[in-house]
Amino acid sequence: MGSQSKETERVVTGWAAKDPSGVLSPYCFSLRETGPEDVYIKVLCCGICHSDLHQVKNDLGMSHYPMVPGHEVVGEVVEVGSNVTKFTVGDRVGVGLIVGCCRNCNPCQRDEEQYCNKKIWSYNDVYTDGRPTQGGFASNLIADQKFVVKIPEGMASEQAAPLLCAGVTIYSPLKHFGLDKSGLKGGILGLGGVGHMGVKMAKAMGHHVTVISSSDKKRKEAMEHLGADEYVVSSDEEKMKELADSFDYLIDTIPVFHPLELYLPLLGLNGKLILNGVINTPLQFLSPMVMLGRKSITGSFVGSMKEMEEMLQFCKEKELTSQIEVVKMDYINQAFERLEKNDVRYRFVVDVAGSKLEP
Amino acid sequence: MGSQSKETERVVTGWAAKDPSGVLSPYCFSLRETGPEDVYIKVLCCGICHSDLHQVKNDLGMSHYPMVPGHEVVGEVVEVGSNVTKFTVGDRVGVGLIVGCCRNCNPCQRDEEQYCNKKIWSYNDVYTDGRPTQGGFASNLIADQKFVVKIPEGMASEQAAPLLCAGVTIYSPLKHFGLDKSGLKGGILGLGGVGHMGVKMAKAMGHHVTVISSSDKKRKEAMEHLGADEYVVSSDEEKMKELADSFDYLIDTIPVFHPLELYLPLLGLNGKLILNGVINTPLQFLSPMVMLGRKSITGSFVGSMKEMEEMLQFCKEKELTSQIEVVKMDYINQAFERLEKNDVRYRFVVDVAGSKLEP
Repeated sequence: MGSQSKETERVVTGWAAKDPSGVLSPYCFSLRETGPEDVYIKVLCCGICHSDLHQVKNDLGMSHYPMVPGHEVVGEVVEVGSNVTKFTVGDRVGVGLIVGCCRNCNPCQRDEEQYCNKKIWSYNDVYTDGRPTQGGFASNLIADQKFVVKIPEGMASEQAAPLLCAGVTIYSPLKHFGLDKSGLKGGILGLGGVGHMGVKMAKAMGHHVTVISSSDKKRKEAMEHLGADEYVVSSDEEKMKELADSFDYLIDTIPVFHPLELYLPLLGLNGKLILNGVINTPLQFLSPMVMLGRKSITGSFVGSMKEMEEMLQFCKEKELTSQIEVVKMDYINQAFERLEKNDVRYRFVVDVAGSKLEP
Repeated sequence: MGSQSKETERVVTGWAAKDPSGVLSPYCFSLRETGPEDVYIKVLCCGICHSDLHQVKNDLGMSHYPMVPGHEVVGEVVEVGSNVTKFTVGDRVGVGLIVGCCRNCNPCQRDEEQYCNKKIWSYNDVYTDGRPTQGGFASNLIADQKFVVKIPEGMASEQAAPLLCAGVTIYSPLKHFGLDKSGLKGGILGLGGVGHMGVKMAKAMGHHVTVISSSDKKRKEAMEHLGADEYVVSSDEEKMKELADSFDYLIDTIPVFHPLELYLPLLGLNGKLILNGVINTPLQFLSPMVMLGRKSITGSFVGSMKEMEEMLQFCKEKELTSQIEVVKMDYINQAFERLEKNDVRYRFVVDVAGSKLEP
């Protein structure tokens, strides 16, 4: 590339991890010019997801540096490409975990592009032009209009951010597996960013919701603030036995190894254990525990753009808010540390537009 | 019980395992008198299922002796109780794995009594009157009419026998999971009694059927005699890679530990791995293998009486036959030995009525 093209490049500032220490610091990088299908966005805020932690620390062995994480991005449209019809300058929009797909495969044709094998992640991936993708902890972001969603009017930006990953991660399986009707009995395993949203969303769908946790620590919060109907400590054998065969589904958000034989007996006939946590050690189960009761161990991965739109509308109608802690960019490394210790109620959102990004 | 009641007891002869050696030998035992709901049956023939092996050898640690195994029973009605409306003397009928249920629980109310927690197994269990239940390797069997099914006219008894367990074990999950429509792509793991029926039944439903086996041994049989469309050896990495993301379902009949990470990648979006083999060591999988593709690991346990009727009708219409080896009762111990070595194509059926049962 000649010096001329460099001069016309769009240089923006973000916070990037430079190596597997996972420490983020200011980083200048270039974004492509706005193509015909592109939406160029000024980032307002961005949530911190547990998977960002895995990525910056190379826990999955697939990290490339420098890496600007962040995939719960809310921003304002500042420029649109010539073919962009869905958005205009000034619109408030969101971008989630996916920014590209092949558009031809079976999942793409079914509008379930999150399952496309050639999907492009919003950061730590390579875009169609060969550039690395970079996420939402930056002044700006550019994305194809297909992967941009409108934030409903009246919904606060910092409230919308966690919905773009944690929210849709809960909404999508409940919808897909026909579990979005009222009167069901659901359980939420693990009460982090996704889990707390699980309680709220399941309650909004009219379910009886039980939080199942390894400790008693979050009982008061779960019952009083999140609106759970019941709270069970998984080591309470008597209570666990009492609850056997009673759940329609369990959403499992625990991001570390845990024994499934503890939870499978809770499911009733045709009950589903839905895994939402990426765990890099194998999970185990005994085949009769699944066969007797025709139970399913399944999982789900974020949601489609279609579900994203539906879910935002659902949250607006139900006035569903998430419990967040808003921080500035210079707090992000502390926020990551606290998240690793599960010391946040329940999601950090970085006020990107209100932060000083430059060093 | 006084000597008088003993005199009026109905004494029959079967072949029983007396201890965990699993060797069967002649055994005289009593059956209850025909109650109002009962059907008293002269056994014609009975299939040998792999789970009979587990039971006679106490592999699951729940065996009681003496034990007359056999739960693929075809017989002729010789007496019916006063409330029996479905059957008359002379009818050809079948009895499978279950002979009792609570009739009140959620599964029972849904006519899925095979998932009732209080179900009574056709042998190695205790009936409502406190007597041990005994299976089909005997001159006679008595069962509540709810658990008796009519054998369609024109279907040979020895052909019907394996359908009562192996057949319904395949039919039930295909039906329940909406996999009974034509045009699907299915895989069968393991080619024993259940697996070979899986190939035939899936073909009869109009599926493209691939047999996936650990060795090349059964290729010719699978392709030529069973009608499989494809045969793949699971250690053929290139072929397995080529088949990635292509199956709607895999029916897993392998009755010993095996690595699921080999098979899960074969499933396409929403694909299902359906476990039919009881394995007493835990199975393992990596959570992203399930999440990315929204795949399900599930299982199924025989089928309901309703499905049993449907399945027999289906097999009759499709003229579906199983591949069996008919033996006499005095060969049963050799048959068990050969079954353990997987040395049978594909199901032993004992010609009970044509055998000498007494020592």
